[in-house]
Amino acid sequence: MPRALEELFGARGCAVVGASQAPKKAGHQIVANMLAAGYKDGLYPINPAGGEILGCPCYPTVASIPNEVQLVILSAPSRATASIVEDLRKRMDEKGDLIGVVCAAAGFAEVGTDEGRSQQELLASFCRERKIRLIGPNCVGIIDTASRVDTTFIAGIVHAPGGISIASQSGALGAWLLMDWSSTPAGRVGFRRFITVGNMADVDIIEGIANLGADPGTKVLGVYIEGSPKARDLAYAIGLAASRKPVLAIKVGRSTEGARAAKSHTGSMAGADALYDGVFHQLGILRVRSPRELSDGLRAFDSLPSPRGGRTFILTQAGGPGIICVDECSASGNIVSALVSDATKAAIRAVVPEIASVCEPEGHADITAAADAGNHVDALEAVLRDEGVDAVILITVATLFLDLEGMARSMVERLAALRAEGINKPIFPVILSGEWVMPCRRVLEEGGLPTWDAPDRAVRALSLMIEHAERSKRSKP
Amino acid sequence: MPRALEELFGARGCAVVGASQAPKKAGHQIVANMLAAGYKDGLYPINPAGGEILGCPCYPTVASIPNEVQLVILSAPSRATASIVEDLRKRMDEKGDLIGVVCAAAGFAEVGTDEGRSQQELLASFCRERKIRLIGPNCVGIIDTASRVDTTFIAGIVHAPGGISIASQSGALGAWLLMDWSSTPAGRVGFRRFITVGNMADVDIIEGIANLGADPGTKVLGVYIEGSPKARDLAYAIGLAASRKPVLAIKVGRSTEGARAAKSHTGSMAGADALYDGVFHQLGILRVRSPRELSDGLRAFDSLPSPRGGRTFILTQAGGPGIICVDECSASGNIVSALVSDATKAAIRAVVPEIASVCEPEGHADITAAADAGNHVDALEAVLRDEGVDAVILITVATLFLDLEGMARSMVERLAALRAEGINKPIFPVILSGEWVMPCRRVLEEGGLPTWDAPDRAVRALSLMIEHAERSKRSKP
Repeated sequence: MPRALEELFGARGCAVVGASQAPKKAGHQIVANMLAAGYKDGLYPINPAGGEILGCPCYPTVASIPNEVQLVILSAPSRATASIVEDLRKRMDEKGDLIGVVCAAAGFAEVGTDEGRSQQELLASFCRERKIRLIGPNCVGIIDTASRVDTTFIAGIVHAPGGISIASQSGALGAWLLMDWSSTPAGRVGFRRFITVGNMADVDIIEGIANLGADPGTKVLGVYIEGSPKARDLAYAIGLAASRKPVLAIKVGRSTEGARAAKSHTGSMAGADALYDGVFHQLGILRVRSPRELSDGLRAFDSLPSPRGGRTFILTQAGGPGIICVDECSASGNIVSALVSDATKAAIRAVVPEIASVCEPEGHADITAAADAGNHVDALEAVLRDEGVDAVILITVATLFLDLEGMARSMVERLAALRAEGINKPIFPVILSGEWVMPCRRVLEEGGLPTWDAPDRAVRALSLMIEHAERSKRSKP
Repeated sequence: MPRALEELFGARGCAVVGASQAPKKAGHQIVANMLAAGYKDGLYPINPAGGEILGCPCYPTVASIPNEVQLVILSAPSRATASIVEDLRKRMDEKGDLIGVVCAAAGFAEVGTDEGRSQQELLASFCRERKIRLIGPNCVGIIDTASRVDTTFIAGIVHAPGGISIASQSGALGAWLLMDWSSTPAGRVGFRRFITVGNMADVDIIEGIANLGADPGTKVLGVYIEGSPKARDLAYAIGLAASRKPVLAIKVGRSTEGARAAKSHTGSMAGADALYDGVFHQLGILRVRSPRELSDGLRAFDSLPSPRGGRTFILTQAGGPGIICVDECSASGNIVSALVSDATKAAIRAVVPEIASVCEPEGHADITAAADAGNHVDALEAVLRDEGVDAVILITVATLFLDLEGMARSMVERLAALRAEGINKPIFPVILSGEWVMPCRRVLEEGGLPTWDAPDRAVRALSLMIEHAERSKRSKP
């Protein structure tokens, strides 16, 4: 019985083979990331030259570390595999405490050479024999923001706890998301766990998905899939995960060329795309195309309450962008205009400039550039109080006269007051545009509301939430 | 015969009615924008209280300005229309030099009240009678980066000259683009002219499009259309423009709800969407959906050489994002894999890491995270030298070991050398991700290459360029 992947996420004692004092090396950044994550359970750089790396004393070998070591991260060239395996063997013979290896190095089976394959098999067979789980080779490994394990060499990750987890067959895709999250208005997006599986010599994307699907700390799961020879097991794992929580998936190889590129990347067979599409639909997987769509959806699911249905009100201070949003909602397939009561229409009119256009068409109010911060917040409250409204998209373009930051602060307060009254609906603030609106977006994001830089992004995230909510309703007895 | 809109773009002498000393007022920002644009032909704030605004002495009335005044910008409340018209009438009786009025104020016909309509008619009929052109009301007016006229009250515009022009029925949409362009990696996107037409009491979207279509300084034209009662004239103007240069259009009202929202915004009838779609296709208008797509396309057309065809090579350092790009290209409908010669394949292999995957599938090389800056630039050169390649998408994810900024500098130099040899093809650098890659993107953008933060954005811009190139080829005798 192999050990569960679960144990690796909480590993006590981590050795970094190939640790380096040179800041541009992966073997340096892994140590830096572990320290930045706040890992406290014993970090041991392995470097025959001795010395210290970022304050951590180096050991010549894994076998020579006196304390407990559960996880070994490999950042040395693949040609060093034989000597590394010897060191690990010695460790197991003497202490027997290793439970996992993350092989961050590339140059194994993915290269397609006999040498690459045999180096990978050397490492993998040793791990199998000693019941050590192997992640990779050719991956960036795992992060757990609770245990503070971070085996990646991605610079600039902000380790903020949250409910999002990611399982990816591409390290670059994971890196893209993590770097992007560190560049959001609030400078962070909370997440729970992250795993990239690379060549899948042992732990594969299926096991990654199964772990995160079962993990109670994971509220929403994002996956990037190139393919698996075990398509049925993959479908089972992802379907089980989707029965427990929203699962958003990018499955590449939609085209023949894409499928071939996937094969030469991690050696995965992409499989017939239509088949995946059908299975995903049946299992309730939310299929997305781009990493931006994936990230937007994950953030919405993690931060916002689930909409009760698709009845959406568009509250806009900007005419054109509001109409673009109406068009996008209509094209979404599941967003419908909220029909508010006459009392609500009167309540909106009472708190917005006279020149505003309210409910022409239904589910839409253009409060115009004459609207001040108070008008925005008061109108939002009036809309949220209507029982016919499931979700609100709020659009505003920075103008001179509008105190956007003040609006954001006041909105966060008002929403908290409404929640205390039991009114808690998803709100999608679209704040335009560029650097000028960052202070406003920062206040909103720090207040728990993801913000968007274009209506279509908000519409897509909302549409995914509605799709999930409606499916969950149907699948209830 | 009314004066041509053309004259307004080069107006000598501008008066700002409703100019204010308060920095949060439109009537202050208009003065600030004129000064920031570098307007030197006489700027006259009108304020009965006298004093100065940003160093410009105020005049009590337009009639009292001793120097030539061709353009008057109105930023006073609509209820002041009668007294403003009296002032302008006096000016015309005494000096007769006004040729245009830009009415930035709202509260006219778009409100739908009798009073709003009658204020608008008062202003419009005076302008008609005196052969003064009127832009607006309810608009942000015009910008010309050559004459330095800027009647807008949008904060933070960077007035950099370029070949892009915009005609928009939404001021907010224009503001969105301009603010966004000031927030790009290089902090600027060059543009030529900008016009928003608001309520179209005189100058309408058709005349805006006709002007920019004929303007030799406009290399590519972006339009945002809500609708026009003169659909035939609109089709004629935009078709004529498209026979001269690429025209990218957002036409809202794709849905019934969107059409109704457009009507209540600027009173425009959207018209049957399928009709517009057919006409646009026939006329060679490139229809886009979102402002991001519009902006991306405009930047590509302005900065990059036209591709000779759709044969595209994807050069990626990141596996997953590269495969996503292959899928997006396949879905584009007009991008095809470039088939390079065996000599080119050998040339690529000679300059990239051994573990790279070259032309599996065709038109794609994954040079892997082991690729350094030189590998990127050398491989790009090898690809560009192949006669079977019309365009290149280059994808890279920041890693520790990659000197991204150095790569950017070296790429800009290498491309200049290739251009000197006569090799000049469009290149789409996708640089991932977030704030971490801004220095690299800045170098590339200052070197004349727009950069992208996701493959799908680059693919869409390239696809628009191919669509235009192929149509231009077909329409040649």
